[in-house]
Amino acid sequence: MQINDKSKPTLHTILTPSLLELYEIKDSVVVIIDVFRATSTMATALYNGATKIIPVDSAEHCIEMGKQTGGITAGERDGKIIPGLAYGNSPSEYPRSFIENKTLVITTTNGTKLLHMALNQGAKEIVTGSFPNLTKVVEFLKAQNAPVILGCSGWKNRFNIEDALFAGAVIEEIKDQFTIHCDSSFMANQLYNQHKDNLSEYIKTVTHWHRLAAYGLEDDMQYCITKDIAPALPIFKSGALVNQG
Amino acid sequence: MQINDKSKPTLHTILTPSLLELYEIKDSVVVIIDVFRATSTMATALYNGATKIIPVDSAEHCIEMGKQTGGITAGERDGKIIPGLAYGNSPSEYPRSFIENKTLVITTTNGTKLLHMALNQGAKEIVTGSFPNLTKVVEFLKAQNAPVILGCSGWKNRFNIEDALFAGAVIEEIKDQFTIHCDSSFMANQLYNQHKDNLSEYIKTVTHWHRLAAYGLEDDMQYCITKDIAPALPIFKSGALVNQG
Repeated sequence: MQINDKSKPTLHTILTPSLLELYEIKDSVVVIIDVFRATSTMATALYNGATKIIPVDSAEHCIEMGKQTGGITAGERDGKIIPGLAYGNSPSEYPRSFIENKTLVITTTNGTKLLHMALNQGAKEIVTGSFPNLTKVVEFLKAQNAPVILGCSGWKNRFNIEDALFAGAVIEEIKDQFTIHCDSSFMANQLYNQHKDNLSEYIKTVTHWHRLAAYGLEDDMQYCITKDIAPALPIFKSGALVNQG
Repeated sequence: MQINDKSKPTLHTILTPSLLELYEIKDSVVVIIDVFRATSTMATALYNGATKIIPVDSAEHCIEMGKQTGGITAGERDGKIIPGLAYGNSPSEYPRSFIENKTLVITTTNGTKLLHMALNQGAKEIVTGSFPNLTKVVEFLKAQNAPVILGCSGWKNRFNIEDALFAGAVIEEIKDQFTIHCDSSFMANQLYNQHKDNLSEYIKTVTHWHRLAAYGLEDDMQYCITKDIAPALPIFKSGALVNQG
């Protein structure tokens, strides 16, 4: 890893939204990571032709924005569709035949919160990342020449492994172009390298796997750790995520 | 790791003090971890015969308590002894010939803060841990039959690797006796196992190593990752850490 090369922009990994305030967000490119399943679903919906995705922070706001935009409302709590919304958080719900040319209004437990925090703190650009759009994220970050924040959504503000794994995968691809002096980034990258050749088995050991497997979502989760299966780049512009990829 | 064995007490790892509020601390045994160097120094001072250690949260409080108790005042900021205090945070400053039968009043950047947070939230017992007293901590936790919180002090509320490594070392020794459903604990244990056979080289890659090596503290840090070199058990009783080991 690069330690002190001042000519390269910095890269930091934020392990949970609770730690965001400790980092300099202003003018950074922020990658919102919520592997299970918000950012995997966002990449999928845009790859399959959704016009835009409006991320919102509450079910009430979701219903209201659904009415205003004529969009599809989506959101889950504890693995079930929230009453009043129409669809859930599963990428499998958004094939091209359904989502093309539609607006998706989505509320999620973890990812949306982090996105709004980054927005309020003056991020230069905000994109969302997960394994289904890994290479799109990597290519975007390489082209920016700006400080990078890899923002893990975690689970109810706690650290989770699957988001750190994705941060580690990104770091593996771009570390030569950044100054990295951040133990969270070192750890994430080492964790990813330790398990990258066995990801589909290893992922079954993490706490969120057990939580979502109880709802029968194993196939969803395996999709969410599949690289480049939905190569879109969700980027936040004027209140919505659109596909820049 | 155990996932759902309700007959065993739980174990969680808290990666930085910023995350403490997310966990149930009340009635738990809390291990305060600040490998570089507060909890390594505390084990050393008590092992070498200090009567007690009073951890305080500010230099002003340290000076005041030093006067009240006749104790030795100690504390550093940015690698230097704080003006008005007498000694620093290095374990090498506290050999038996100096510290035996004396009271140490110490303020530290990270560890003391976490200790007071755990105290305020009603921890059942608070002990301090680092590699120099690893086995003492492990034996104590095995004997308690109570929920365990491994509390990493981190660095200025950010995650650091050396504290997670120690948490992982503790988990490696006690995981069969606890219910662990905590990604932070899984990660810490995997990180430790990945690097345990090469700890003295690996530790040179972490950010805090670079920060403290700039002050010439390499030997101090190698001491702080040496297992069982100061086998004391600092336990918090009536406002001070005493040796229960």
